[in-house]
Amino acid sequence: MPVIAPPKGTRDFYPEEMAIREHIFASWEKTCRRYGFEKFDAPAFEQLELYTQKSGEEIEKQLYSFADKGGRMMALRPELTPSLARMVATRGNSLKKPVRWFSIPRLFRYERMQRGRQREFFQLNMDILGIAESVADAELVAAVVATMTDLGFDASDFSVRISSRNLLEQLFLRAGVPQDRLAALYGALDKRHKMPAEAFMQTLANALGEQKLADSVLGLLEMQDFSDIMRTYGDLSAVRALDELFELLDLYGMTPFIEFDISIVRGLAYYTGTVFEVFDRKRSLRAIAGGGRYDRLVSLYGGPDTPAVGFAAGDVVLGELMKEKGILPGPQSRSAVFIVSIGSVKTAIETARILRDAGIGCEFSLKSTGVGKQLKQADAAGSRLVVFVGGEEEQRGEVKLKDMGTGNESTVASAELLEAVRSRLQ
Amino acid sequence: MPVIAPPKGTRDFYPEEMAIREHIFASWEKTCRRYGFEKFDAPAFEQLELYTQKSGEEIEKQLYSFADKGGRMMALRPELTPSLARMVATRGNSLKKPVRWFSIPRLFRYERMQRGRQREFFQLNMDILGIAESVADAELVAAVVATMTDLGFDASDFSVRISSRNLLEQLFLRAGVPQDRLAALYGALDKRHKMPAEAFMQTLANALGEQKLADSVLGLLEMQDFSDIMRTYGDLSAVRALDELFELLDLYGMTPFIEFDISIVRGLAYYTGTVFEVFDRKRSLRAIAGGGRYDRLVSLYGGPDTPAVGFAAGDVVLGELMKEKGILPGPQSRSAVFIVSIGSVKTAIETARILRDAGIGCEFSLKSTGVGKQLKQADAAGSRLVVFVGGEEEQRGEVKLKDMGTGNESTVASAELLEAVRSRLQ
Repeated sequence: MPVIAPPKGTRDFYPEEMAIREHIFASWEKTCRRYGFEKFDAPAFEQLELYTQKSGEEIEKQLYSFADKGGRMMALRPELTPSLARMVATRGNSLKKPVRWFSIPRLFRYERMQRGRQREFFQLNMDILGIAESVADAELVAAVVATMTDLGFDASDFSVRISSRNLLEQLFLRAGVPQDRLAALYGALDKRHKMPAEAFMQTLANALGEQKLADSVLGLLEMQDFSDIMRTYGDLSAVRALDELFELLDLYGMTPFIEFDISIVRGLAYYTGTVFEVFDRKRSLRAIAGGGRYDRLVSLYGGPDTPAVGFAAGDVVLGELMKEKGILPGPQSRSAVFIVSIGSVKTAIETARILRDAGIGCEFSLKSTGVGKQLKQADAAGSRLVVFVGGEEEQRGEVKLKDMGTGNESTVASAELLEAVRSRLQ
Repeated sequence: MPVIAPPKGTRDFYPEEMAIREHIFASWEKTCRRYGFEKFDAPAFEQLELYTQKSGEEIEKQLYSFADKGGRMMALRPELTPSLARMVATRGNSLKKPVRWFSIPRLFRYERMQRGRQREFFQLNMDILGIAESVADAELVAAVVATMTDLGFDASDFSVRISSRNLLEQLFLRAGVPQDRLAALYGALDKRHKMPAEAFMQTLANALGEQKLADSVLGLLEMQDFSDIMRTYGDLSAVRALDELFELLDLYGMTPFIEFDISIVRGLAYYTGTVFEVFDRKRSLRAIAGGGRYDRLVSLYGGPDTPAVGFAAGDVVLGELMKEKGILPGPQSRSAVFIVSIGSVKTAIETARILRDAGIGCEFSLKSTGVGKQLKQADAAGSRLVVFVGGEEEQRGEVKLKDMGTGNESTVASAELLEAVRSRLQ
């Protein structure tokens, strides 16, 4: 019988892949803690209706949905923000503001397979709710930069490309785009880098209903220098707000990581203000992270008016970039100590008990075999230290230790084993 | 609009519930590491056929299954062991033995709701593959005890109730149960504590096809003293194997936690040898953990013959027992330090940057407000230390610190802030 395969777009995490995943998660968590965020989580599936109105058409098409045995329509979560908004809406005004939450959810999207995509993947989510001021936006942009630098990236590897839905709206309205064409326009803009230039022109003209407007919009999109925007459109409130954000980010020391990019729109329907995406400098990969302000979502879910800003960073593209830069962690040790027994397993069990009771990770051969094979097991376990028990030394009340790195051997009294192991593992 | 509810049988993990979950997971992981296990994971859903033949009827009825957009039948994982067996089968002989793996999967079963049950829950799984010897069984029973003692339980709180499928099989065959009735008999036995005594008698008689056999089986099930079994059935290989296991467990120091319980069967179809379940001593709750030997599963999935033993412990019943004993962790701090700013947020940002760069968790008010309100925020964040920046002290090149526990205040030079915060947080 052939072995059943895992579903397409999912991953088996053997210990070597799991160690990489854990390394990324631990680094993310450390960043969140030093930025003053606390962890939360929501169910892995939700009622389908949580997604069908608020997430936007693209995500809806990718839902893994199903009827449970009670006939209720459910969907595996494709993103965490709707669950977050639902949870905040549920607690309403009893929840102390600001909410500063992070989570590392497993998510599911039925996408076409390509580089940097999986149908099952993980994200870091960081969100601040209850703050309308742009310090919250700055705090989150600074945090997303910190997640990257904590993993070992620097300003030559990535940047945060920032824009604002308000800015786009004010510029487009001034250029003559009708209010009711804005949503279609954002949809077209978000797909810009996913299609050839000609196809994009056509999509843009369709979204706007006329070629002349499309040309004006293209002209605006060419303004890649924020100081040009300041000069020409400095009277617009969204321009001033973005300028304030850049000033705050400078106080955070983030200027080397920041770029203004008017073309950043974000595909999700619920964004209302600042939007940003993190890309590798070469732009050879999909976005590593993306986020922005979504001030209306909590109230759309039936909660009180709650300004909110957040971002999500995925694990798949990030892993590829870490591999490129050579900062993936190396193989991990399973047991710091391996106990080789000469003779009965009895002494090995007793020795393991002493070490484990002291919190030291160790193992021993679970079947009787020669010393050579046991040493091979020690090697496979990545042990730094081997303790030899039994044999002549046991009769003398001693144990032999071998440092697997240096090859150095030494003999200590059995009663001093724990102390000796501790000092050698330091 | 009413807020959409989470699906029945799932849980929202607000930070206070998440802290409890993380406390349990961290403790589990610590136990696994000191026992020499490495972490792995598999997809959250698998092809449906992975479960429809090997898991047993009860789990099959509880599957969340669905067709993906390509029309392939999938199911959310109700347990991790089939994925584990599939992964080991896939790598075949290239995987170094023994495999010593643990995982903390999120699992899904559409069960009727009652105390200690959720439709979405977590488990710790620990497994050893590649070892037929009973030292592996002992290692895992010792490990499940250690997961409990590491969380703060002692021998007065719980016990591991051990039996053996081989023992039952040999006893039942000797009593005259036909080989082809064994599976039905195990099914009946596993439901014993879930139905009234009379209903159980009837189920048993049905499973066996005659009343007299049912009486013999009941007689065997009354042998709760292993020394009685040794006296009467000491010639059976399964009795000698179980005796050896108890001796090994004594070397591990586990005797105070162990009980022989002939009625332990385990519902899953794939067990072949030792079986065990962890219960609270009062038996007021469902099993906290359960496991055993499943030597045929990897080969059933198309892999090489691979002896295996493992267990799973759930988070829901465990959480209830921790609550009863009063060993749930208390509220957690979000930020060790809260920065109160008198005047502009500028200095608060700069101060946060210094502390965060040094790895110290901190936050500050993201909108301008009075000192009183900022102190309330510090309280909500659970901060141990408040740093006051700005105002008179700033003009003198100083900052004021307040210990939120003792109420003690002190003033230090701005340049010495980091050092002062570090020493006060120790």
